[in-house]
Amino acid sequence: MRFSRIGEKYTSKSGILALMDDLGAALQGTDKVYMLGGGNPAHIPQVNEIWRRRMEEILAAGDEFERMLANYDGPQGNKAFLEALAGMLSERYGWAVGPENIAVTNGSQSAFYYLFTLFAGQDSAGKLRKVLFPLTPEYVGYADQPSEAGFFVSRRSVIDEFEEHRFKYRVDLDNLEIGDDIAALCVSRPTNPTGNVLTDSEISALSSVAADRELPLFIDNAYGVPFPGIIFEEVKPVWDRHIILGMSLSKLGLPASRTGIIVADVPVIDALSSLNAVMSLATGSVGQVITTPLLKNGEILRISKDIIRPYYKQKANKALSWIDEFFEGRVDYSVHKSEGAIFLWIWFKNLRVPVSELYERLKKRGVIVVPGQFFFYGLEEEWEHRNQCIRINYGQAEEDVRRGIEIIAEEAQKLHG
Amino acid sequence: MRFSRIGEKYTSKSGILALMDDLGAALQGTDKVYMLGGGNPAHIPQVNEIWRRRMEEILAAGDEFERMLANYDGPQGNKAFLEALAGMLSERYGWAVGPENIAVTNGSQSAFYYLFTLFAGQDSAGKLRKVLFPLTPEYVGYADQPSEAGFFVSRRSVIDEFEEHRFKYRVDLDNLEIGDDIAALCVSRPTNPTGNVLTDSEISALSSVAADRELPLFIDNAYGVPFPGIIFEEVKPVWDRHIILGMSLSKLGLPASRTGIIVADVPVIDALSSLNAVMSLATGSVGQVITTPLLKNGEILRISKDIIRPYYKQKANKALSWIDEFFEGRVDYSVHKSEGAIFLWIWFKNLRVPVSELYERLKKRGVIVVPGQFFFYGLEEEWEHRNQCIRINYGQAEEDVRRGIEIIAEEAQKLHG
Repeated sequence: MRFSRIGEKYTSKSGILALMDDLGAALQGTDKVYMLGGGNPAHIPQVNEIWRRRMEEILAAGDEFERMLANYDGPQGNKAFLEALAGMLSERYGWAVGPENIAVTNGSQSAFYYLFTLFAGQDSAGKLRKVLFPLTPEYVGYADQPSEAGFFVSRRSVIDEFEEHRFKYRVDLDNLEIGDDIAALCVSRPTNPTGNVLTDSEISALSSVAADRELPLFIDNAYGVPFPGIIFEEVKPVWDRHIILGMSLSKLGLPASRTGIIVADVPVIDALSSLNAVMSLATGSVGQVITTPLLKNGEILRISKDIIRPYYKQKANKALSWIDEFFEGRVDYSVHKSEGAIFLWIWFKNLRVPVSELYERLKKRGVIVVPGQFFFYGLEEEWEHRNQCIRINYGQAEEDVRRGIEIIAEEAQKLHG
Repeated sequence: MRFSRIGEKYTSKSGILALMDDLGAALQGTDKVYMLGGGNPAHIPQVNEIWRRRMEEILAAGDEFERMLANYDGPQGNKAFLEALAGMLSERYGWAVGPENIAVTNGSQSAFYYLFTLFAGQDSAGKLRKVLFPLTPEYVGYADQPSEAGFFVSRRSVIDEFEEHRFKYRVDLDNLEIGDDIAALCVSRPTNPTGNVLTDSEISALSSVAADRELPLFIDNAYGVPFPGIIFEEVKPVWDRHIILGMSLSKLGLPASRTGIIVADVPVIDALSSLNAVMSLATGSVGQVITTPLLKNGEILRISKDIIRPYYKQKANKALSWIDEFFEGRVDYSVHKSEGAIFLWIWFKNLRVPVSELYERLKKRGVIVVPGQFFFYGLEEEWEHRNQCIRINYGQAEEDVRRGIEIIAEEAQKLHG
C-alpha cells in the first residue's frame, strides 16, 4: 500500500508524533513514572461533582438523555448550546455575537485544523499564503496541521527578565513585518507551552495590525476567560469581527467530550460548519448538553473563577517554589512568569548539551517532560534558546510534581556547563 | 478575509452542502414536515433503555464517570475498548486482529476523511492516484471529502430487475478495469443510499482484484454486522490484511457520541492514529466506555440481531408495502431491494423532469427527501438514471413515512411522462 504525498507528510513522525511514540514506549518499561509531560487537565473534585450532578439531572429529565445520545446535532453545533453561549458572551462582555457567530467542533484541535485549512496554503491564484505566529514558542499541536511544510512562519519573541529566575516573552512589535504572503495571525492566550498571557496592549496592537491588513487574528483561548479561567492576570477578553476566538470545554474537566468552540464573523462560522459537515458530519453532543444550563445561568463563570482558577493558581505557586528550592545554587535557570495555562516553562541558561539530552536522562529516571524544541516551528533563523527550555505540566499529583522537579534539578546539574 | 484554494473548495456548497442549506431554510417555513431526508437512526426504546442503564452503571462504579469524561484517550482510542472489540472480532469471526488493528475516530465520517487523505491525491512522485467506487450510486458523504476534484472515479452499476417493481444494483465486474492511477477501492455495505448489500461473491471478487494489485479495499460497514446488524441478507463479514473495514456506533443509537471505528493492518492503524493526533488530538470516550462491557460479553450481538435488525426489517417492509399501495397504477417505479441500511431507494422510470423538480415540489408539501443525483459523483459518462431516483429514510414515525410516501406518489403522478 502506498500513501499519498500528503498522507506521507501526516505520518512522517518527524516531530511531536515521534516524541509521543517514544514516550509510549518509555512508559511501558519504567517502574514509577512522574508524568509531567502530557496535557491532561487536573481532576478537581468539586468540578467533577458538578458534571456528575449534571448527568444525573439529564437522566432524570424525561427523554433528555436519549435526545443527547441518539440525535445528530447539525454541523454548526447544538442549537441550545449555541444560544446559551452567545447569550452569555453578549451579556457579559457586550460582544455583538449571536448563535450565528459560534461553531462547535470535535475538540479545539480540530477547530484549528479547519482554520489552517481554510486560510493557509495556496490561494485561488496559486500564491502561497502563510499563517504568522507573532510569539515563539507556540503550541506544538499546530505544527503538523498544515498539509504541506512552509505554511507557517513565526517570529522570535523578546525575553524580558524582570526579576531573579523569572522572565516573560514579549511580541517584538517593532520587527513584526507582515508581508503580502500572510493570510492570518495566530496566538494562544494563555500560551501553551509557556504560561504567557499576552498583555492587553500586545493584543490591541496585533488586532490593529490584522484589521489594517484585513487579516483574521486567531486567538486560541482554550485556557482563558470566561471559561475555564486558568489565567492569573487581569486582562480583557476581546472579540471583534476579524478576531477568530477559540474556546474549549477540555480544561473545564471535559476533555474526553471533545468539544471545541469558535467565535467568529458569520462567513467564517458558515465555512467552519461546511468543513465540519464534510469532514466530521456532526458535532458530539455530550459536552454541549452537560454545560448548556450552566452557560445560561452563569454558573460556569463562578466555577471558573472560584474553583478552577484558584486551584491551578495554588498548584502553580507550589511548583514554582519547588523549582526555586531545588534549582537555586545548582542550575542557572529562569522560569517563565506563570500567568495562566497548566504548564511551567523552564529555561536552562547554561547546559552544555541541548535539552533533548536532558529529556533522555529524565526519561530513564521516570520523569516525563516535553523538550522545548518542538515549540519553535516556523522560525526562519537559528535561535539557541530553542534547545534550552522544557515544558512541565504542574497540575498533576503534588508529590509527583515535587519529586519530578527534584529529579530535574539533579539531572540538569549533571549537565551544567 | 480570503480563503485558501482548498478552503474555497470545501465551502463552495456545490452539492450536498447546498442541499443541506436549502433544507434548513425550507424547514423554517413549513407547517407539518415529513422528514424522510436525514440520516438519523430511529429511537428504539429497548436499545435506548440499555444505554440509559449503562450510564447509570458508570455513575455507580466508583470514579468511572470521572475517568470517562476527564481523561484524554490516546489518538488510537480507549485501550479497554480496543481490546474488547478485537477480542470479539477474533473470537466470533476468527479474524487475526488484536487491539493494534483497530483505531477509533470522532465518527465514521472523519475515518473516511482520513482514509481518503491518506491514499488519494498526488503521490510523492507527483502522480495523481484516485479512489475507485466500483458501484454507483454510493454514499454522498464521501463526495466532497477530497481536497481537490478529480480524486474519485466511479463505475456505473448493472441494474438487475428481478421481480415487478424491484431491482438490485450489481458491480459490473466485466468492465472493472483498474488503471495504474487507482490507489484504493471503496464500497459501503450495506450501501447508503440504496439499501444494497454486495453479495459474498461480489466482495470476494473485489477483494481478489484489490489484493492482486496490492491495493486496499475500503468497506464501510456502518450498518452491517456484527453491529448494528441492519442487514437483511445472510452474508459473510470479511476482513483481511488489505481490507480496511469501517464500523460505527451511530446506528446502534449513539450518533451523538461520534464514534467511528477502523479495522485494518497495523501500518494503516498507525497512520490513522497519527492523523487523529494531528487533526483531532484524541478520540471521544463516551461511546467507547458505554459499549465496552457489551462488546466483552457479546451482548452487543444480541442487541443487534434480536432488537435492531427486526425493528428496521419490519419498518422497511411496511414502507415498501405503502410504496406499492400508493404507487401502483399511478407511477412507473421500481424500488431497490431492501437488503440493509435505513433507506429505501426509489427509481422513477418515466418522469418527464429530473427528480430535482420532484424534490422541489415535495418540499413545498413538507415532504423532505434526498434527490438522487448527488450519489452519482465520479462518473465519467452521462447516465440518465442519475436523475431518476430519490432516497427516503424509512426509520421515522410510521404515520409520517406512510403519509410522506402517499404525497410522493401524488406529486410523482403529476410529473409522469
